[in-house]
Amino acid sequence: MKEVVGVGLIGYGTVGSGVVRILHEHKEKMERETGCDVVVKKIVVRDKEKERSYPLHGAQLTTCIEDILEDTSIHVVVEVMGGTEEAKEYILRAFEAKKHVVTANKDLLAMHGEELLNAAARNGSDLYYEASVAGGIPILRGLVDGLASDRIQKVMGIVNGTTNYMLTKMTEEGVSYEGVLREAQALGFAESDPTADVDGLDAARKMVILATLGFSMKVAFEDVDVKGIRHVTQKDLQLASQLGYVMKLIGTAEEKDGAVSISVAPTLIPKSHPLAGVRNEYNAVYVYGEAVGQTMFYGPGAGQLPTATAVVSDIVTVVKHMRLGTTGKAMSFASRSKVLQDDSNIHSKYFLRVHMKDETGTFLALTKSFVQENISFDKILQLPLDDENAEVVVVTHSTSKKQIQQVCASLDSQYMEMVSLYRVEGE
Amino acid sequence: MKEVVGVGLIGYGTVGSGVVRILHEHKEKMERETGCDVVVKKIVVRDKEKERSYPLHGAQLTTCIEDILEDTSIHVVVEVMGGTEEAKEYILRAFEAKKHVVTANKDLLAMHGEELLNAAARNGSDLYYEASVAGGIPILRGLVDGLASDRIQKVMGIVNGTTNYMLTKMTEEGVSYEGVLREAQALGFAESDPTADVDGLDAARKMVILATLGFSMKVAFEDVDVKGIRHVTQKDLQLASQLGYVMKLIGTAEEKDGAVSISVAPTLIPKSHPLAGVRNEYNAVYVYGEAVGQTMFYGPGAGQLPTATAVVSDIVTVVKHMRLGTTGKAMSFASRSKVLQDDSNIHSKYFLRVHMKDETGTFLALTKSFVQENISFDKILQLPLDDENAEVVVVTHSTSKKQIQQVCASLDSQYMEMVSLYRVEGE
Repeated sequence: MKEVVGVGLIGYGTVGSGVVRILHEHKEKMERETGCDVVVKKIVVRDKEKERSYPLHGAQLTTCIEDILEDTSIHVVVEVMGGTEEAKEYILRAFEAKKHVVTANKDLLAMHGEELLNAAARNGSDLYYEASVAGGIPILRGLVDGLASDRIQKVMGIVNGTTNYMLTKMTEEGVSYEGVLREAQALGFAESDPTADVDGLDAARKMVILATLGFSMKVAFEDVDVKGIRHVTQKDLQLASQLGYVMKLIGTAEEKDGAVSISVAPTLIPKSHPLAGVRNEYNAVYVYGEAVGQTMFYGPGAGQLPTATAVVSDIVTVVKHMRLGTTGKAMSFASRSKVLQDDSNIHSKYFLRVHMKDETGTFLALTKSFVQENISFDKILQLPLDDENAEVVVVTHSTSKKQIQQVCASLDSQYMEMVSLYRVEGE
Repeated sequence: MKEVVGVGLIGYGTVGSGVVRILHEHKEKMERETGCDVVVKKIVVRDKEKERSYPLHGAQLTTCIEDILEDTSIHVVVEVMGGTEEAKEYILRAFEAKKHVVTANKDLLAMHGEELLNAAARNGSDLYYEASVAGGIPILRGLVDGLASDRIQKVMGIVNGTTNYMLTKMTEEGVSYEGVLREAQALGFAESDPTADVDGLDAARKMVILATLGFSMKVAFEDVDVKGIRHVTQKDLQLASQLGYVMKLIGTAEEKDGAVSISVAPTLIPKSHPLAGVRNEYNAVYVYGEAVGQTMFYGPGAGQLPTATAVVSDIVTVVKHMRLGTTGKAMSFASRSKVLQDDSNIHSKYFLRVHMKDETGTFLALTKSFVQENISFDKILQLPLDDENAEVVVVTHSTSKKQIQQVCASLDSQYMEMVSLYRVEGE
């Protein structure tokens, strides 16, 4: 008879039920991969009586975490309850009970990753979290194992499915931000409080995990320069399109001369760039390595089964380690101390929309402000706005974040209105 | 002092010198990743006196394989000599000497993969070969670890950089097959005997490795239905383009109802498909998993540093295993016995070019031939060819390989000339 590996789930929402389903439906492949029978034994839920539409396939519901922690037939704990404080406590207690943990909880990892990994190592336990970034795309493995020998220079990608869906609809169907948000909420793609998605916080947490792994440097949420899509307008998208760009919520993490910068912001990408073709809820992450050049990982960024697949692949890894007797031996999360890049060293191109009086001399004043900061123009588009005012759209050549901030301050002091400012990447 | 892990190279061509360079230049990251000092100690070459443009960074050249096999300070043997028989013998002897092996040799893996993996396991050795497929893209790790829990349904991709470069030039610049081959040879992208690339043999070997890993089924080179790009004409590309397609040399491996089919052939892809945008020497592999849906891995398919990066990432994996005491424990190559798909069960759409007499009734005869096999048309394009003959281009709806073969035989017997026949994928 095959050895049985017991799994305990904390949480039984969309992802949790997907995990139960995959373990059940892919039973044969699981056995082939691990040589074991991997069985979900218990599931901790808040309310045992609640009607559930997913079959339990023999698992037992409980409201009591101790039922899992004290069950010696349960070897792997899968945390899919979400939230941070309670989830962290349960995971730490699971390690103390010498159990291994798989989680899809990006908030938790971004906030307490190092503490959790240290606790895992102390207890000889495994901790895996592939599902925490870009759902079904095995990007963390790609970074940690596949490109282990290369020096990662930059990671850039679309890591939030909700906002990518919204921006796709806004771009392709001309829907307003408010309209597409309501639609996404109705379809269940966006939460009733969409802050985490639309303000870029979710993407920022994923970039923290990617940057930490990519650069072996422990960065924090506070180190990410975050801007969301709340203020993106149809006019922004149309003018960007006229100049050959499409807008995406892009996370970047870059190392230069030993210092890193991490940002999340609505960013313009040339229409011909592969990231421009990543539509709807799909995610894609570009990795630039010194030796390998550019590679891209593309796939569904969320969704029940893709996310559950990543969780179950982590369970497979843990079970293999259990069989080989190699659990608790993951290499450290981040071995280098953190050095953040100075704003004067963070370079990119920028797209600006400025409203100004349509009078002789104002365009010259605008130009002077840029020249003063040594910024040259790549593209310019001027359009009449109304009888008295003009709209000027500028795409700069590469310039530093510090310089662009100084230009903005200077325009402001000259009564020109900076309507929008976006980074341009991928040219 | 750090533990030193000794590496012995067999072969010192492009990839070998890239390995030496990356180990040297990324020394700090290697130490961080593995906790060891990874040093190339000896390199086996045919001719010690030959002028070499790459620095050796302290490695010692030898013409004698025993210098590596008998050196107990060498733990990892990297085979980058190419070829199959001699390389196989050296690798088997390395295992007997209890050394671990990393190779980039796809021909060897496609032909003798199982034997080598068994020999590795018997001797407690590791054998890794990420670089053998799609150079810098960590696709094998993606298949084996990242999607371990999913049931892989189909793997489809561009896995040969030379032919992709050639087809890109033919499509975008209108160059003939002969012209672009000469150009590729001059640039060093194609060998003086280009057979392995242009006849699809190289791609077929990679598909053998991908199919074996994806389906855990030991398939052989003979199981691949291979067609190369030698007979692709400008006219084919132009007519395909008129109907919205671009041509790529596509490898597919598909499992349906427990049986697999593997093919390599010039294939038409809709221009909007992400694979259509994979240009020049880049590679990309789509993986369709039952649960995850579609994911794609994209990157440089060849080249010194991308390939060397994959080799060195494998060395990192081996060194980690050495430190953890877990070498020689890779799971088996292929645990299921082989079942090949019947031609009547292999379905796809087809693009056909037929030349026929421009007379009343011939088009009806053509149509009847298709109706007889129950094949319906998706697109039709008829053009005059000369005074007496017409060219008809047909794209069928999905049909079986067997049916399309019968139609071809039937057209042939009616004196219609089948000029070209290509599969259509990705719609």
